[in-house]
Amino acid sequence: MTKDYKQMWNNLDINLEAHDGLLAVLSDAYQNIYLSQHNRPEGMKYFDFVISEVHGLRIEEILEAKKERRKVIGTFCVYVPEEIILALDGVCIGLCAGADVGSDEAEKFIPRNTCALIKAFMGFKLAGLCPYIQTTDLIVGETTCDGKKKAYEIFDEITGGKMYVMEIPNMKGEDGRTLWRNEVKRFAKKLEAITGKMIALEKLNEASKIVNARRKALQRLSLLRSFEPSPISGLDALLINQVSFYDDPVRFTAKVSELCDELDERVKDGSGVSKKGIPRILVSGSPMAVPNWKLHAIIEGSGAAVVGEESCVGERNFGVILDDGFSSVEEGIEKIADRYMNIHCACFTPNDERLSDILDMAKRLKADGIIHYAIQFCTPYMLEAFKAKKALDNKGIPFLRIETDYSMEDMGQLKTRIEAFLEMIGKGVRV
Amino acid sequence: MTKDYKQMWNNLDINLEAHDGLLAVLSDAYQNIYLSQHNRPEGMKYFDFVISEVHGLRIEEILEAKKERRKVIGTFCVYVPEEIILALDGVCIGLCAGADVGSDEAEKFIPRNTCALIKAFMGFKLAGLCPYIQTTDLIVGETTCDGKKKAYEIFDEITGGKMYVMEIPNMKGEDGRTLWRNEVKRFAKKLEAITGKMIALEKLNEASKIVNARRKALQRLSLLRSFEPSPISGLDALLINQVSFYDDPVRFTAKVSELCDELDERVKDGSGVSKKGIPRILVSGSPMAVPNWKLHAIIEGSGAAVVGEESCVGERNFGVILDDGFSSVEEGIEKIADRYMNIHCACFTPNDERLSDILDMAKRLKADGIIHYAIQFCTPYMLEAFKAKKALDNKGIPFLRIETDYSMEDMGQLKTRIEAFLEMIGKGVRV
Repeated sequence: MTKDYKQMWNNLDINLEAHDGLLAVLSDAYQNIYLSQHNRPEGMKYFDFVISEVHGLRIEEILEAKKERRKVIGTFCVYVPEEIILALDGVCIGLCAGADVGSDEAEKFIPRNTCALIKAFMGFKLAGLCPYIQTTDLIVGETTCDGKKKAYEIFDEITGGKMYVMEIPNMKGEDGRTLWRNEVKRFAKKLEAITGKMIALEKLNEASKIVNARRKALQRLSLLRSFEPSPISGLDALLINQVSFYDDPVRFTAKVSELCDELDERVKDGSGVSKKGIPRILVSGSPMAVPNWKLHAIIEGSGAAVVGEESCVGERNFGVILDDGFSSVEEGIEKIADRYMNIHCACFTPNDERLSDILDMAKRLKADGIIHYAIQFCTPYMLEAFKAKKALDNKGIPFLRIETDYSMEDMGQLKTRIEAFLEMIGKGVRV
Repeated sequence: MTKDYKQMWNNLDINLEAHDGLLAVLSDAYQNIYLSQHNRPEGMKYFDFVISEVHGLRIEEILEAKKERRKVIGTFCVYVPEEIILALDGVCIGLCAGADVGSDEAEKFIPRNTCALIKAFMGFKLAGLCPYIQTTDLIVGETTCDGKKKAYEIFDEITGGKMYVMEIPNMKGEDGRTLWRNEVKRFAKKLEAITGKMIALEKLNEASKIVNARRKALQRLSLLRSFEPSPISGLDALLINQVSFYDDPVRFTAKVSELCDELDERVKDGSGVSKKGIPRILVSGSPMAVPNWKLHAIIEGSGAAVVGEESCVGERNFGVILDDGFSSVEEGIEKIADRYMNIHCACFTPNDERLSDILDMAKRLKADGIIHYAIQFCTPYMLEAFKAKKALDNKGIPFLRIETDYSMEDMGQLKTRIEAFLEMIGKGVRV
């Protein structure tokens, strides 16, 4: 880090000793998993820097924004309409949920059999390890799964009433769409109330362009991974997607675009991060919050390339572009609501669109196989994996189903299963 | 059983050998858990008979109904509006989901980490052990939890497209209520389509009276358990509640009423099934489908009395009386929808009404403590247990949180924990 943030963290009620430990572990992991990679693009230096300052410079920026009376909105889901937050000068931040910290504390409030992501956001807060959550004025939850839906009730008490929960319907029928549109309208009103501002058309259009530009930059990055060999590792691409949830969106978009220019050159040269002909894997399933790099590290450490993420930290975040350029705020809010309703989350029943997405991505990214990733106890994705397998089997695309948490205990077992899967793909044998 | 049903079961594609085994286990368990109880009311003989004929006489009745072209509607949840089914001469049946059968088969379609109830309904079908499901014309699911919501998609394929899923919202706001009302209207239209009939006002009023009468009989039974000593065991009362899901509703109501007359006499005499002064326990949480008697057997086997079930197989099934006597079918459908929306299921967020229900029941039934029961991996109730504990702690009411499945492996451990809990209640010590 560029400087000493102890005073800042102390002011945010961070547990300094435990936090030092966390940063040391993170730094070691980053060194081993990221910096040890060969032939990385120059443009990754920015993202390396962002990670090295993950709880430092970015927090400082957010505190500066707060001094300008801008509101900080924490989120856990790609369903939260960021355009509305930005239109009201808010800062939108995906909160810490990707590491096994504070589990013992969390298990006083939620069951042991809770998914690692939920346990982590509880644990980060309870152990005093997430400076982001300390800066928030509002934390926006959503009813995407039983675990989050019920955990938010408890988290509201833990955070002193900061939670605001948006209802996402269970089906995509007309009534569900109406319900969701009204939820987005209510959310806009809530944000207007806490910011003391009204949404202006110009600002909403501007915010929509900012978020769309980020989506387009991430789509460009995704498309570059379709080349063989891929000009960037799956690990690096995953990191960029993770950083998209808390970096300043305009700066982030510029940096991703610069990186993509560099990757364009690599593609023209026919050069990549790895040699041609290695197995190309599409990862699909539960989100991977930073610093959850476990699966990608195993896959790429086993000599394959991850070429895409059909995931909320991935395609589900940037795949759908908003139809922007509104002529009224009302039109904007409705179009924003409708845009988010097109995210194919396993929270919906049925959700066959997701199966089409996986097939489309596999084709577009020239994937040789799918590794379906579900966080243990993530019921929607754990169950949908069975339907996904059937759909992929029907197309003759190899498919491996993984359930795991954030611990390192099953690393050996996962590596064995993934290596066997890659070997079979290499031999052209169906799994 | 009164006669040989082999031919009937064979016609229903039941796996005869495995089914004989299941009935033998069930009969043994019933002998050990139920028939060994002392001082049971005479009126329980009817329910003993019903259980002895659980896959026999009742199935025969249903097949007779089918000959009269009545449709058989299978359900898994107290949210399915039975009044509408009965108004169209349908037979409404809660499907088999209470025993650990067919797990190996089920785990080919759903994850191991799935709640026992879901695994059971899959397993019963896959192993060919549920004659009820074989008789159904339609199986009605609902979006009450991630596990069921996603498992129904797979179950639809397994049952050859018999599933019809009703959307239950995640919140009880105005939009959610509108969505649900429309769902109930759609369900009515669906039933009209498969029965080829239109709902008549007179029939809807009649059906509503039939279901309300059953609710009132079960409420009367519940109230009788508030006396000390209780005139009926918790096990017997649980059984009656379980039977309410598949017995003919008019006959069932008459038999419960007869039993209650007998219990009235016991109360007048001051006599009960057990001695006065033993700990009185309210069980709260996940539903207990027949033959899931595990928790009650342990509690009552440890010298306490279960005096109520804050459960779908219990109070959540009969606690709310429908405002009946409609002047139009439309009015009826809306009132029916609104009645079901008042069930305080953990699928809603927030669901503080349930905490009030537990406190009210504890008071009304003079409970000395609450045992909160969640089926393992039943996320909504597992998580809500933490809020329930806090609410009960605040009132100084002892509270024990249990998570278990249908297996007998943890019987010893549960017994130890429950005995310790009862001992502390006996000593007046807070747990």
